[in-house]
Amino acid sequence: MSDEVIQQTKLWLGEHYNEGNGRSEFADKLKEECGVLGIFNVPDASTLSYYALHALQHRGEESAGICTVDTKEKNRFCYYRGLGLVKEVFDKEKLAELKGDRAIGHVRYPSSGEEDAASNIQPLIFRYRDGDLAVATNGSIINAGEIRTELEQQGSIFQTTSDTEVIAHLIARSSADFETAAKEALARLNGGFAVLIMTNDKLLAATDRHGFRPLVLGKVGSGFVFSSETCAFETIGATYVRDITPGELLILSDNELREERFAEAERQAMCAMEYIYFARPDSDINGINIHSARKRMGRMLAKESFVDADIVTGVPDSSISAAIGYAEQTGIPYELGLIKNKYTGRTFIQPSQQLREQGVKMKLSAVRKVVEGKRVVMIDDSIVRGTTSLRIVNLLREAGAIEVHVRITSPPFQNPCFYGIDTPERKDLIAARMTVEQIRREINADSLQFLTHQGCLDAVGSNEEVRNRGLCMACFDNDYPTEQQNEQMVTSNSK
Amino acid sequence: MSDEVIQQTKLWLGEHYNEGNGRSEFADKLKEECGVLGIFNVPDASTLSYYALHALQHRGEESAGICTVDTKEKNRFCYYRGLGLVKEVFDKEKLAELKGDRAIGHVRYPSSGEEDAASNIQPLIFRYRDGDLAVATNGSIINAGEIRTELEQQGSIFQTTSDTEVIAHLIARSSADFETAAKEALARLNGGFAVLIMTNDKLLAATDRHGFRPLVLGKVGSGFVFSSETCAFETIGATYVRDITPGELLILSDNELREERFAEAERQAMCAMEYIYFARPDSDINGINIHSARKRMGRMLAKESFVDADIVTGVPDSSISAAIGYAEQTGIPYELGLIKNKYTGRTFIQPSQQLREQGVKMKLSAVRKVVEGKRVVMIDDSIVRGTTSLRIVNLLREAGAIEVHVRITSPPFQNPCFYGIDTPERKDLIAARMTVEQIRREINADSLQFLTHQGCLDAVGSNEEVRNRGLCMACFDNDYPTEQQNEQMVTSNSK
Amino acid sequence: MSDEVIQQTKLWLGEHYNEGNGRSEFADKLKEECGVLGIFNVPDASTLSYYALHALQHRGEESAGICTVDTKEKNRFCYYRGLGLVKEVFDKEKLAELKGDRAIGHVRYPSSGEEDAASNIQPLIFRYRDGDLAVATNGSIINAGEIRTELEQQGSIFQTTSDTEVIAHLIARSSADFETAAKEALARLNGGFAVLIMTNDKLLAATDRHGFRPLVLGKVGSGFVFSSETCAFETIGATYVRDITPGELLILSDNELREERFAEAERQAMCAMEYIYFARPDSDINGINIHSARKRMGRMLAKESFVDADIVTGVPDSSISAAIGYAEQTGIPYELGLIKNKYTGRTFIQPSQQLREQGVKMKLSAVRKVVEGKRVVMIDDSIVRGTTSLRIVNLLREAGAIEVHVRITSPPFQNPCFYGIDTPERKDLIAARMTVEQIRREINADSLQFLTHQGCLDAVGSNEEVRNRGLCMACFDNDYPTEQQNEQMVTSNSK
Amino acid sequence: MSDEVIQQTKLWLGEHYNEGNGRSEFADKLKEECGVLGIFNVPDASTLSYYALHALQHRGEESAGICTVDTKEKNRFCYYRGLGLVKEVFDKEKLAELKGDRAIGHVRYPSSGEEDAASNIQPLIFRYRDGDLAVATNGSIINAGEIRTELEQQGSIFQTTSDTEVIAHLIARSSADFETAAKEALARLNGGFAVLIMTNDKLLAATDRHGFRPLVLGKVGSGFVFSSETCAFETIGATYVRDITPGELLILSDNELREERFAEAERQAMCAMEYIYFARPDSDINGINIHSARKRMGRMLAKESFVDADIVTGVPDSSISAAIGYAEQTGIPYELGLIKNKYTGRTFIQPSQQLREQGVKMKLSAVRKVVEGKRVVMIDDSIVRGTTSLRIVNLLREAGAIEVHVRITSPPFQNPCFYGIDTPERKDLIAARMTVEQIRREINADSLQFLTHQGCLDAVGSNEEVRNRGLCMACFDNDYPTEQQNEQMVTSNSK
Repeated sequence: MSDEVIQQTKLWLGEHYNEGNGRSEFADKLKEECGVLGIFNVPDASTLSYYALHALQHRGEESAGICTVDTKEKNRFCYYRGLGLVKEVFDKEKLAELKGDRAIGHVRYPSSGEEDAASNIQPLIFRYRDGDLAVATNGSIINAGEIRTELEQQGSIFQTTSDTEVIAHLIARSSADFETAAKEALARLNGGFAVLIMTNDKLLAATDRHGFRPLVLGKVGSGFVFSSETCAFETIGATYVRDITPGELLILSDNELREERFAEAERQAMCAMEYIYFARPDSDINGINIHSARKRMGRMLAKESFVDADIVTGVPDSSISAAIGYAEQTGIPYELGLIKNKYTGRTFIQPSQQLREQGVKMKLSAVRKVVEGKRVVMIDDSIVRGTTSLRIVNLLREAGAIEVHVRITSPPFQNPCFYGIDTPERKDLIAARMTVEQIRREINADSLQFLTHQGCLDAVGSNEEVRNRGLCMACFDNDYPTEQQNEQMVTSNSK
Repeated sequence: MSDEVIQQTKLWLGEHYNEGNGRSEFADKLKEECGVLGIFNVPDASTLSYYALHALQHRGEESAGICTVDTKEKNRFCYYRGLGLVKEVFDKEKLAELKGDRAIGHVRYPSSGEEDAASNIQPLIFRYRDGDLAVATNGSIINAGEIRTELEQQGSIFQTTSDTEVIAHLIARSSADFETAAKEALARLNGGFAVLIMTNDKLLAATDRHGFRPLVLGKVGSGFVFSSETCAFETIGATYVRDITPGELLILSDNELREERFAEAERQAMCAMEYIYFARPDSDINGINIHSARKRMGRMLAKESFVDADIVTGVPDSSISAAIGYAEQTGIPYELGLIKNKYTGRTFIQPSQQLREQGVKMKLSAVRKVVEGKRVVMIDDSIVRGTTSLRIVNLLREAGAIEVHVRITSPPFQNPCFYGIDTPERKDLIAARMTVEQIRREINADSLQFLTHQGCLDAVGSNEEVRNRGLCMACFDNDYPTEQQNEQMVTSNSK
Repeated sequence: MSDEVIQQTKLWLGEHYNEGNGRSEFADKLKEECGVLGIFNVPDASTLSYYALHALQHRGEESAGICTVDTKEKNRFCYYRGLGLVKEVFDKEKLAELKGDRAIGHVRYPSSGEEDAASNIQPLIFRYRDGDLAVATNGSIINAGEIRTELEQQGSIFQTTSDTEVIAHLIARSSADFETAAKEALARLNGGFAVLIMTNDKLLAATDRHGFRPLVLGKVGSGFVFSSETCAFETIGATYVRDITPGELLILSDNELREERFAEAERQAMCAMEYIYFARPDSDINGINIHSARKRMGRMLAKESFVDADIVTGVPDSSISAAIGYAEQTGIPYELGLIKNKYTGRTFIQPSQQLREQGVKMKLSAVRKVVEGKRVVMIDDSIVRGTTSLRIVNLLREAGAIEVHVRITSPPFQNPCFYGIDTPERKDLIAARMTVEQIRREINADSLQFLTHQGCLDAVGSNEEVRNRGLCMACFDNDYPTEQQNEQMVTSNSK
Repeated sequence: MSDEVIQQTKLWLGEHYNEGNGRSEFADKLKEECGVLGIFNVPDASTLSYYALHALQHRGEESAGICTVDTKEKNRFCYYRGLGLVKEVFDKEKLAELKGDRAIGHVRYPSSGEEDAASNIQPLIFRYRDGDLAVATNGSIINAGEIRTELEQQGSIFQTTSDTEVIAHLIARSSADFETAAKEALARLNGGFAVLIMTNDKLLAATDRHGFRPLVLGKVGSGFVFSSETCAFETIGATYVRDITPGELLILSDNELREERFAEAERQAMCAMEYIYFARPDSDINGINIHSARKRMGRMLAKESFVDADIVTGVPDSSISAAIGYAEQTGIPYELGLIKNKYTGRTFIQPSQQLREQGVKMKLSAVRKVVEGKRVVMIDDSIVRGTTSLRIVNLLREAGAIEVHVRITSPPFQNPCFYGIDTPERKDLIAARMTVEQIRREINADSLQFLTHQGCLDAVGSNEEVRNRGLCMACFDNDYPTEQQNEQMVTSNSK
């Protein structure tokens, strides 16, 4: 049936939650962020976007969208957006109808508590006085609510509950030419974000003044590509050119690339969690490979907090690299002590409470033959609420592990994020209210050690000369790069 | 799959056209208009809306939508809209989620050439400064394009290509209180329309200054119902109260009905084609039953243009009543000379040109045993381009009719409509460029007669004291009730 | 999702019942029978079958199937079957894959109480020793259960619960050549049926010894077509050749038509209900047009049981022809006193008991303006349980009719059918346990008259020289053409 | 839409191929085998089956089915089967309708060239004289074609093209009691298979005389579970009891487990490829953990064919364990040189040839930062046609690897399998027609070494006292455990 599924309140969300969609067994993992993708002057841009977004899928599993400019037919927009994985939302027929050699695309997680996931699917598309406008963002605009209220008072009607929409209204309201209007709009925004703006003839790319979120430029054929991560370049045969820098505004028009600014750069503050957890291991951020950084975290952790044991195991998938680093550093063999079912996904049926108590596992199992009778070092990337860690330690114990030593490849996570990570409130962060020893007891581990702040920075190994090596470590050290944020702001629900 | 099907250009339309969707064998029939429905203070408003919209389905087969106000949960809006018949768009689960005892609903045909059918599905829903706004219209707002351009120049972003959207922006831009803003907005509109506007606590109903389109008020239980036609009342057990009059604005708030005006009434001009063709035979408009009016048209036609024949047959479904009237008046037996396949619908596969030439018929067939060797009077309601009439006359001849006398229950259709009927341009109206005799030859009939202008007015039998008995006959007599329209305005694509 | 929906027990049926599917408000109407269709040596046989089955849709609204022989690729079978209307089951892509110039098709109602509707969708397809076999039937095989038990004892495994399957097993078990095996198989069957059997190179058509069910032969281009009703011929541009006679077996092979027999004809006994209710008004059975027969029934009824009244109305759709006949005979005007919503269908949501009590009507409404204050003659084709008649009489009364005189175009329906109509048990047939006067009171009518047995026969007007004019009137007169049937046999669930 | 998707020829397959379905970039990987699952006397058997089949998903990604016995309602069967992953085929509603505390389930790959995938989805369900019969197999029945021909000559009609169906017909044709009939049927079968047979009151489990395919028994609560692999036990909280032995027939009836035989055991010959490639790393076969066996293969390979290099990498997912073993043995660091996109699946759109040439990769990428400028040891499990190996070597080279040394954890694959692996013909096996040096050149490697026959056996480490340590190594050593097979037999298309 050809139904338009636009619903205002919880009609859609309800269905979706019933499907399982990642509010899983291990729901206290941090929610990964969105991914953005732009292509300019490359034939069959929608299909390339499809493959590139597929490579960025880990940054947003709940919805996907592509908007193209049909350069052969009056630069009109063609777009399609839907709930689900990239492969679920698009098929050959849809891609074929998305004509043109320019495109922007998006993959997305809704924020927790968001009530309007279906109509917030990006790229957002607008028609205004001067034509069409497509906007895709990754991150968080802290003052979006404030700007929105101001515009609504002046009679603007918003189409979504997404923060991203303020960008379009600021541009539409401006009496300046488009590029000036876009710069002024971006300059009004406060927060951490990467943004792509497409019109009928241009494509703009920018990151905030601090460069919290990654955004890279590549070449493919005679055209250009923007992506949240470099892994998309390998997938579509593109070549990496450079990372977008804080406050920069790149403008593609005809086939010219202009490098401008919408604001002065401030202290660089790339999100450390991108290295620790979010980004794909084969991506590079600011020239540093993620897998390698994680392996160094594992090695560093082994140096800082060695423990004698029979095997090292990592919590899949994000901690495998670190676990191998730990194993190499210590000589303790790396083993497959935990295994994740690769088929689990959004539509999977969650086991009931009763079935879980009977021992039904959905996603992660311990491997009895491997861990039975063994002293196990279990490597994980972070502890948020602590519930997941407890479950995994218990899985290992139930499978016969005689000791479980937990080693975490980052410092204790103590502060909420305002720059694009969907974190719980501070009171729900276990490290904000307990000591390491209390956490150890809470998660039932024989020992527990976190990587030190300095160890983490050194393992990443980025620019030594800037504060925090150019990383935002606010979730660990409470040192927010922007003026002090307060927690009320966290209610913002865009990505 | 849970896909949001919002597409900008022809992506969706393409699919839809492939499904057949009524651009059928007999595509030169006039497109029926939209239907609107409102319910106030009746439990389970969405389910009642479902049945009532089903009764109005003939006014719009291509999309349907319902928006409710959940009075138990902060008067929030719940809505669902989709492409297809009412029964295809809604199921039990969706109706159950559309909570509350107030609702507005809509069924719709897109305008010809409209490129954005999916996002124009009504009711349109907006969030503005003061809350939520749902708007549903039937008809045409002639100056919508002009108002839109003015608002866009001021920085408004429109969500749809629908004329209806200007109503919401006019209200949002106003600095007056809501009711005043609504009146001012309606007063700016030029054209023929019925409109329902719902907010979190009120429901407004109005028709234009001339009352071109029908809109009736009923009671159901202790609440109220608005509907484009009375047939919806019978379906849901409601009682007819009265027709809404030109320029009137009815306001439901709490459980009070207030009768106000947004403009002075001008000359009443109810669309004559509602009586002739559009409305359901069991509906009454301004107190006159449609079936009875059509039967009188048939009788009048028999008096005006009797022809000796063996049988009378009507083109199903709209001309059956008139054919029976003609038969009763003349004594010539009414027979089933033409039959329509009742299962044909939107998803039906159109026969290819080659198959049609082989004789494959999709929808309408002549009944050989009934017409073979007979002189046939064929009653139809109107001739637009003439192609349909030719086909039907030929069907009868191929099935053995020896004479075919065509009798039309309205005068020659010569002028385009600006008030809500999707008519071809004047040059494509056969009666605008040919004499009756020329048309007769064009449609291969043995004789052809149209009902006279006076005969038509008298058969309807409405108020004798006002011009044209209170009917708009502009498509027949070029006497447009509003200031002279020009054809450029016809590009407006809302319903 | 690509699901194979084969379920053994009530899994599917449950879903289906939830959809409404005709167990409607007026569920005590007799269930119409299946329709069969065969095409031989006509290009694009699947598409022609699609249009022809669409014309036969009224004989079975719940499932449809087409099997073709791809004569260009080794005479392999291609088939597709599904639940739903013809237009719902098939789309262009599916038809395109059903290659070849031969086909058989089927539309179907499941029997009441049938638990296996999904796997019983016809044509049934089998692979046996000598190739492929497709079988489609309309009617009932009384001794199917007995034959099945016998074959299962010998080790046969049945794939469905359909009676039709015994035909394939009898052929597969035979050691004779195919045509002989087919004749022997048909000769073993007892009951009322039309059957089409297709192999990789032949197409066979037959009706039972009494010819209970209609089956007609036509020509289309240089090929042939078999159909349950002639209305399919008009739809696809075919020419009627003749009706298949009792006990006959027509064999198409290469492009030769051979006329053989599998049994001697016995007394002809065409189902009278085909004329009265089942067949489409534009079809002819044994040369008699259905609409004309029904109109004669109405006229005859007027002669037999005139009543003075203001208007005549017919219960749509089947009784319109008779009502017009009644009106013409009496001079009382025919009016649209009852109207049926043409959009109602399988997926429509039934109103709850509570809504019905509030006056919500799903399908049929009385037209207040037409019947108010009038004495109404209401024509219907039959009374089965009586509940429907009561509802309709009450609809008319609630809409203001002051008298309701019910006239039925057939004699009282008193006996169950064993030949393909899905009738209730005798105890549920109101006419089997009440006098006409009792029924009148039960249905709240002012008067009630049935057409007489002789009046019915004469109105049909078939061959005067054979018993009952060649009709089976067993449901009215208890004179079963086959040896006395007992009610246990009625459990057979095939069509 | 509620469609029954039964198609005879390529109708369905066509659609499916269009979806991508694993005939991927790396299509010359061996096709994994089917998985079977049985549950007896455990509440909510369908839901447990769902989770257990999910754990067996890697053994068959193309279809899934579950059949339950509703012990509370006359032991009737309830079943549902569909194309797709377990999570795609089933949802909560379907599982809820599959009532009862007994079930068998199946996941499946169709054989290459199979034309009837949709109707071959297992478990196959039959109704015969004595009730219902559900059969699920993993493996290959070599003489199924021969038995089928024999039964068809006697008049049996087969429902599918699956080898598995002969088991049901042999039982239905037998005049013995059910258990005897089942034993006789199994005794007639030649090949390598695990089989589950469920009736209305019993559940039978068996493997062939040589035990080619794994099948294990577990306890869950007070009931029993059979599974192809132990990984399903961990998932549902079951406890491993023992592996089923060759020729054994386990019968569950009431709550008794009887251990019987249908044939004498012959030389044990567990498929070596289960250890090398097919089974999940957390499973144990005959008491040996797969991950551990693979790690030993990696270590053994390092001992047999050390090469100096900078990094070791494994082809994901199956060769990761071996690569880590190789790294640990040699001290060369294990790195993430290759990464697989975990979201790729059946519905993914394959890149066109042109896009591939542009560098678009669907599933596997090399990680430039990791391999650039490095000498790489690339561990893989086997080389079948050689095309995959060439592609992966080239991926590494294009990403900058300066040397690529390929090490394979099994001997050269030279002979087709008759026992359940879908292998190409011998002429398409690269190792059957080339020397190791020729293959090295063909795949563009700097060096290439295979694990030796003895090294492979010792790494698995199973029972030393029987021939080949109880493994079937026929694909490597041409020593077929059953009487000599010839290649014609390989056309059998069941799993």
